[in-house]
Amino acid sequence: MPNSDPGALDPKFMARALELARKGLYSTHPNPRVGCVIVLDGQIVGEGWHARAGEPHAEVHALRQAGARARGATAYVTLEPCSHHGRTPPCADALVDAGIARVVAAMQDPNPEVSGRGLQRLMQAGIAVQSGVLESEARALNAGFIKRMEHGLPFVRVKLAMSLDGRTAMASGESQWITGPAARAAVQRLRARASVVLTGADTVLTDAARLTVRPDELGLNAELTALAMTRPPLRVLVDGRLRVPLTAPFYQVGAALVATCAAAEARDRFLEQGHELLAMPGSNGHVDLRKLLTELAARGVNEVLVEAGPRLAGAFAQAGLVDEYQLFVAAKFLGSSARPLLDLPLARMAEATPLKIIEMRAVGDDWRIIAVPQGKTPESQR
Amino acid sequence: MPNSDPGALDPKFMARALELARKGLYSTHPNPRVGCVIVLDGQIVGEGWHARAGEPHAEVHALRQAGARARGATAYVTLEPCSHHGRTPPCADALVDAGIARVVAAMQDPNPEVSGRGLQRLMQAGIAVQSGVLESEARALNAGFIKRMEHGLPFVRVKLAMSLDGRTAMASGESQWITGPAARAAVQRLRARASVVLTGADTVLTDAARLTVRPDELGLNAELTALAMTRPPLRVLVDGRLRVPLTAPFYQVGAALVATCAAAEARDRFLEQGHELLAMPGSNGHVDLRKLLTELAARGVNEVLVEAGPRLAGAFAQAGLVDEYQLFVAAKFLGSSARPLLDLPLARMAEATPLKIIEMRAVGDDWRIIAVPQGKTPESQR
Repeated sequence: MPNSDPGALDPKFMARALELARKGLYSTHPNPRVGCVIVLDGQIVGEGWHARAGEPHAEVHALRQAGARARGATAYVTLEPCSHHGRTPPCADALVDAGIARVVAAMQDPNPEVSGRGLQRLMQAGIAVQSGVLESEARALNAGFIKRMEHGLPFVRVKLAMSLDGRTAMASGESQWITGPAARAAVQRLRARASVVLTGADTVLTDAARLTVRPDELGLNAELTALAMTRPPLRVLVDGRLRVPLTAPFYQVGAALVATCAAAEARDRFLEQGHELLAMPGSNGHVDLRKLLTELAARGVNEVLVEAGPRLAGAFAQAGLVDEYQLFVAAKFLGSSARPLLDLPLARMAEATPLKIIEMRAVGDDWRIIAVPQGKTPESQR
Repeated sequence: MPNSDPGALDPKFMARALELARKGLYSTHPNPRVGCVIVLDGQIVGEGWHARAGEPHAEVHALRQAGARARGATAYVTLEPCSHHGRTPPCADALVDAGIARVVAAMQDPNPEVSGRGLQRLMQAGIAVQSGVLESEARALNAGFIKRMEHGLPFVRVKLAMSLDGRTAMASGESQWITGPAARAAVQRLRARASVVLTGADTVLTDAARLTVRPDELGLNAELTALAMTRPPLRVLVDGRLRVPLTAPFYQVGAALVATCAAAEARDRFLEQGHELLAMPGSNGHVDLRKLLTELAARGVNEVLVEAGPRLAGAFAQAGLVDEYQLFVAAKFLGSSARPLLDLPLARMAEATPLKIIEMRAVGDDWRIIAVPQGKTPESQR
């Protein structure tokens, strides 16, 4: 039982726990990013964050650091402590055993099957419990994990690079280096935080794209870079008709997953090279994107970064599967013969996809616009 | 001769003078916007700004307010005081007569023929003189006047409204209300501050555009609205082949200037309706835009606002005549069948117009991007 009054709750400690959780941005998937701060008499006595699936949870790190000072302390944790035995023992039990007096959670577990159970377990052990402190910030940090738990789909972020007049490449296909190094580093970090980087045959064939994470281009410190490189995103190629040959650079730089409607007899050939061929239903040689996303979520994919040409990106848009657009805008006009941003043939204004722009910010010499489809409330604004 | 030490120079008084000058934003043309503050013993004793050509200059208003307290005071003025007799007597003489001890100017007169003469006249009268305080702000305020004086051309601002994917209208032409009321009010203010609002036959024919300033949509206070409406911009239509009939709404709401390559025999017909027909050289029925701008500058036009479709706006871009783009961006995708922002057929990336984005800001539900062609330094950044 708690042996001291835990004192007033202070959101600044939750802000610190969120700061710690963010260190896991590039490496916790399929797990959520979680941070924990243990506070005794207004002083932080333990801090922890979850780094990688299979390794200790944030609470365990924080409790270890706090030691005996955990007794009677308050634990601020960005996600409801788990109550089930996974790859590690339940954190709720660890908090009880350590003599924690109060647990403040930013949000409950989004998994409807276990939501609230961890807090219940704590309450039953006589621990004071509170939830909902800085909840919107906590949800934004784990938008992918939450969407997967709540909807069985990953969070889909579409990255596009365009000129100020909405063009992605010249009519000839010439497209390299539309944006500058700062924008490219930002894209590298978007890749690194994703569970999957997804592209299409056009991009791989035209740009010889590899879609890898390059440690020296991330612009992160050594610790985070090292962590990111231990959990690189799975590269997924949508290639309905298997147009991309196994000799393409994309296939030379590591294992990939290929989603295709083409006959499965190619499977062994891909397998031999270390790649997985996923036979997907489709029509006209086009992979059913919703089914693909459902399959990816079932495999534990939280965030998908789509880096594709106008056709595939347009198909995601038209199917209503996009949660967020990140448009990197180069300050130039490419002109009206250049290629469009999205293949999205609309006839009437009323069909136009309404968006909400939530950020416009300079990134080096370029600008980044973050926009979310209206109706899809961004996690950061719930 | 000055009878007291003028004390230290304080840029905050120049900032105030610029604030006053801005009140003339909508009404001074063809004159520059100018403000003046008279300071004695660290206290403002007189303020003035120029409201309309033909009316007293900023210095005269400020001196009147200061009265006898002008003696030994410092005058902060956003532009070098004039030394010549125009429609009003020279301000330099007025400052001398009032016993001003020191004159601080933000910038010298940009007219190369008189630049420095006003300051010289003051110095010869024993007045201490300084120039260059908050000069870049002062230049930005009068970018049009300065460009006309220095280059014999007006400052050309191109306003475009587009979707996030760089489209201006559906393929059908459907285009009304891409952006919301706040953006439309901002455009109204751009019109009101311009000496000329310029458009093309496509826009007038397709959108029944009138390009008027509507007082109730300006979003300005009563004083500025009234001033603006006494100096509405001249509406200029570029109609190389005289395609727009005199019955168009554009011609029903006031006098306009029509630039055309078509035979001048129509001149009388236009004149009868109160419009001026300007015969311009051109090729293939396209008016020579540089010659048109030169002619407008010769008539005292400082700022031109181009509100046109992709063809005419693209022609200004391609001719290198644009000083500033203001893109109003609606947060929606109109899709790849929709009309392009600019008709600007470029084949290679190297031909792309490099721009510098100097501002991205929310305007109601829409966003405004201000971009300037690289090489053309914006007045605000000189």
